[in-house]
Amino acid sequence: MNVLSSLEFAGTFVFGLNGGFTAMEAENLDLVGVMVLAAVTALGGGVLRDIFIGNLPPISLRDWRYIAVALFAGLAAFMIRRHSKVVHKPIVILDAAGLSLFCVAGTEIAFNFHLGPFQSIILGTVTGVGGGTIRDVIIRRVPTVLSSGLYAIPAAMGSALTAIALRYNFYSVSVELAAVLICFGVRMAGVVWKINLPTSGRD
Amino acid sequence: MNVLSSLEFAGTFVFGLNGGFTAMEAENLDLVGVMVLAAVTALGGGVLRDIFIGNLPPISLRDWRYIAVALFAGLAAFMIRRHSKVVHKPIVILDAAGLSLFCVAGTEIAFNFHLGPFQSIILGTVTGVGGGTIRDVIIRRVPTVLSSGLYAIPAAMGSALTAIALRYNFYSVSVELAAVLICFGVRMAGVVWKINLPTSGRD
Amino acid sequence: MNVLSSLEFAGTFVFGLNGGFTAMEAENLDLVGVMVLAAVTALGGGVLRDIFIGNLPPISLRDWRYIAVALFAGLAAFMIRRHSKVVHKPIVILDAAGLSLFCVAGTEIAFNFHLGPFQSIILGTVTGVGGGTIRDVIIRRVPTVLSSGLYAIPAAMGSALTAIALRYNFYSVSVELAAVLICFGVRMAGVVWKINLPTSGRD
Repeated sequence: MNVLSSLEFAGTFVFGLNGGFTAMEAENLDLVGVMVLAAVTALGGGVLRDIFIGNLPPISLRDWRYIAVALFAGLAAFMIRRHSKVVHKPIVILDAAGLSLFCVAGTEIAFNFHLGPFQSIILGTVTGVGGGTIRDVIIRRVPTVLSSGLYAIPAAMGSALTAIALRYNFYSVSVELAAVLICFGVRMAGVVWKINLPTSGRD
Repeated sequence: MNVLSSLEFAGTFVFGLNGGFTAMEAENLDLVGVMVLAAVTALGGGVLRDIFIGNLPPISLRDWRYIAVALFAGLAAFMIRRHSKVVHKPIVILDAAGLSLFCVAGTEIAFNFHLGPFQSIILGTVTGVGGGTIRDVIIRRVPTVLSSGLYAIPAAMGSALTAIALRYNFYSVSVELAAVLICFGVRMAGVVWKINLPTSGRD
Repeated sequence: MNVLSSLEFAGTFVFGLNGGFTAMEAENLDLVGVMVLAAVTALGGGVLRDIFIGNLPPISLRDWRYIAVALFAGLAAFMIRRHSKVVHKPIVILDAAGLSLFCVAGTEIAFNFHLGPFQSIILGTVTGVGGGTIRDVIIRRVPTVLSSGLYAIPAAMGSALTAIALRYNFYSVSVELAAVLICFGVRMAGVVWKINLPTSGRD
């Protein structure tokens, strides 16, 4: 539980920062708006997961530090917004790290709540991509997860390794690390080589 | 409970198919996007209902087959997208069938969770129209339920008959069937004769 | 609990009326659409709070009168829409009153569910601004709370006084009244003098 908490905690700031920058790119927001969207991005996926598994109040509402960290990330994003181009590359990398940590932690939490392995994969993926998706809906962008490159796929891969290891009792810190690295690696490969899935076109 | 499950199960594939087609019409999505939106359309209404009544995890997360069917419906929609005009008419009919099954099953589940008849009607209607509404918000369409023709009304009528029968102890398989047929009939009448409610205009 | 209920009840009609008018300004909706969005505006914030604290079914689903009042407010808004300019000013004032009542009542409910003072402030604010935010997302407006003037800030101030008083055991009817008045006063000051927070610009 401790490791899980720190995983979620570590990703929160990065997701919040990324959420704040993405929101400011899309809309002219005031400070409160940026902080709200940073919090939505950072906490939304975990809150969705906790609602779905009935783990209420959600983990991120039981400890005030989650919200504080997420709001502070929004404040930081607002403050350094003029340098957002400089920080773009590190942010993409940190976002991939956050995605990896969140999907693995989310899968583990769902499995510990007695959901089946398949559902745990889905909920781990939701934990990773949910916050950004809610943010994108609020700022009226097509959610990243629906239309561009590899985002849900790496999260599902990391979640799948986690769920299979939990189901067949070979879960360990090294498996956890492997799951995080698979998600991170596939996500970054998608970013670097601009890999896209086939699209529907419009016919 | 068994009949309820099969009702929900039967509607899931149809709603997922319809959700995938609708999403592809509105946006250029990749395969993952279509599958996600098929699942949101098929499962969203029931998940909303289960969250509202505190029935967590939602029914569709307790049995992996719901998600699997919904995702497969998205895959199927993606595969046959070039023929989407050919399947348009059957889809409208199947969607009306799904709406009818979902609203009746949703009302019954809410009532069994000790909600009052009026609230059960609302939750049955939410079960029927909720998934499509969430999908429309994600793809940035004005939700069908808000602006065009008869969609919530037939669902509310089917739900109302169900709730009244449950409240006054004359619920039976034939009443259930009547409720499904009323919703289906009114919905199809609205589609065929393009019946619309009065609108607000813009003044 | 009785005072809490009446606070929530009193705000529901006003929020519903305001929600209906706002929705009709933005989109061409039919009667059902206006009633749905009135209900979403009036009940959304409290439902979100109740989901987050695990208070399910939400308070507004346990008593049929909440939904009935909210839907009736939508009907009323639809009926008097041609006079919406005449009622604009009273509506802004009543909306500020609703915001004040909702944030204080929401904070109190969250605190009584054993959430910490900081989280209670957040949830009180969510109670006040949540319904309007969901409505704005559905009708594809940038939510008021993100971009214009003082809306979340006064709600957070009223919530903060409530939470601090509850935490340090000096909560009373006069403190409650003071919290409501602080929120109301700051909101109306923001409206009258068009006070805005610094924005991010687009750089």
